Amino acid sequence: MAIPYLPNFMGSDNPPMAAALLLPSSVPLSPPIFSQDDYKKAAAYKAVEFVHSGMVLGLGTGSTAKHAVDRIAELLRQGTLKDIVGIPTSKKTYDQAVSLGIPLSDLDSHHVIDLAIDGADEVDPHLNLVKGRGGSLLREKMVECVCKKFIVIVDESKLVEYIGGSGLAMPVEVVPYCWKFTAVRLQNLFEDTDCVAKLRTVGDDGEPYVTDNGNYIVDLYFKKAIGDLKVASDRILRLAGVVEHGMFLDMATTVIVAGELGITIKNKELDE
Amino acid sequence: MAIPYLPNFMGSDNPPMAAALLLPSSVPLSPPIFSQDDYKKAAAYKAVEFVHSGMVLGLGTGSTAKHAVDRIAELLRQGTLKDIVGIPTSKKTYDQAVSLGIPLSDLDSHHVIDLAIDGADEVDPHLNLVKGRGGSLLREKMVECVCKKFIVIVDESKLVEYIGGSGLAMPVEVVPYCWKFTAVRLQNLFEDTDCVAKLRTVGDDGEPYVTDNGNYIVDLYFKKAIGDLKVASDRILRLAGVVEHGMFLDMATTVIVAGELGITIKNKELDE
Repeated sequence: MAIPYLPNFMGSDNPPMAAALLLPSSVPLSPPIFSQDDYKKAAAYKAVEFVHSGMVLGLGTGSTAKHAVDRIAELLRQGTLKDIVGIPTSKKTYDQAVSLGIPLSDLDSHHVIDLAIDGADEVDPHLNLVKGRGGSLLREKMVECVCKKFIVIVDESKLVEYIGGSGLAMPVEVVPYCWKFTAVRLQNLFEDTDCVAKLRTVGDDGEPYVTDNGNYIVDLYFKKAIGDLKVASDRILRLAGVVEHGMFLDMATTVIVAGELGITIKNKELDE
Repeated sequence: MAIPYLPNFMGSDNPPMAAALLLPSSVPLSPPIFSQDDYKKAAAYKAVEFVHSGMVLGLGTGSTAKHAVDRIAELLRQGTLKDIVGIPTSKKTYDQAVSLGIPLSDLDSHHVIDLAIDGADEVDPHLNLVKGRGGSLLREKMVECVCKKFIVIVDESKLVEYIGGSGLAMPVEVVPYCWKFTAVRLQNLFEDTDCVAKLRTVGDDGEPYVTDNGNYIVDLYFKKAIGDLKVASDRILRLAGVVEHGMFLDMATTVIVAGELGITIKNKELDE
């Protein structure tokens, strides 16, 4: 079950939000005065409370995780945190962390990560996730599958009843070679859900989006639930041409949700 | 059960081998006068007998498949074959086929392939294969998993009691990002078989071998059988960072083996 949480976590640079999030969770904010980004920031700051000096940290990618990386750097500058080693999950996060002076390493040097903090595109009631709409699903999964603790930070718009339930993309990273064929095979895998597969593109001329690993992304859109997620995962991974998919199953240990009613923390250990 | 086969398939440019392979299979050739490459060529030429005009053909990669591609081109030049469309499984085979004038296409244009002919590094008694020591496992698997008929051509040295039984490599294509970590995870997956994982390198300076898809190859060496192959396959594919592996399970419909005793044809339909 979700745990209503009354936070007191924001720095003095955010007094209005801090005040609002201190309201009892039964009191809706009306009219809402916070943006989606405020909620992302609130969830990120809460997650960083779980970071301790000396940790090896997986640093997530995306608009929510960015706030966590900023906050970690702030606490390092203040001296509140020390001896942190960050493992970035994308080139973008690498660049951000370098610019902020966070010491970095990689999985080749650190096979076990104490804690990762990252956003998600969807969170289902069992804490299964969709990730990768930002395009970094492979490196995120490589890092986050070897974490002792994986905290997911989202605003409440990311909660779904089932994976794919947002109507938005479930991304699949595929090799560029004959990607059209792979897209057709992916779509056919889920034809009973009226699945539509689309190549992710950038710019006005429809050039393929290219991942940090030199691959393409095929976005799958499901019209209804796809059934047993582990079975679906194996079916996708068995397709030659698929590199990885954006379903993160049974990986998140904690999900922190920020929304109009404050912050909610869901722990896998308690819920499953 | 294997079918002893008395071939009569070689062109007039190979009279000694043609004569030898016409010997009854119970008569060993002593002393052996044929090279391993002669056997490869014999198997390849036999396979090409199954090619008919109008077919869409998967063109394999490697020293054995090369003979099949050469033979197909020869029959096209002679007019014995017409209206062939080839789907090459590597850049190398693409180059070979272009130089020989074989019309080519790809999987994006042809989602069903009538017949593929390719070599293998190992063939077990159930016609499961190890492929990819030549480095083209991904494209080979993409093409050969959608063939109506998949003929594997090998010399007898490729027959093994179990997958990995040659003591040689079972290749896994991995993304370059943190490949060392992926290699460790692969090795750990099969630690009960004393598995050793090694990056494939080229040249004297140990540079990583790079596949047509821009990835690396981690070669796995098993000391004993790895148990249920489909379970092993799923375990490998579930590792984030793995793109594809070289076990081709339940894919070959026919295996043509050439050796000292002539040519043997094993059909999956009869054997399984």
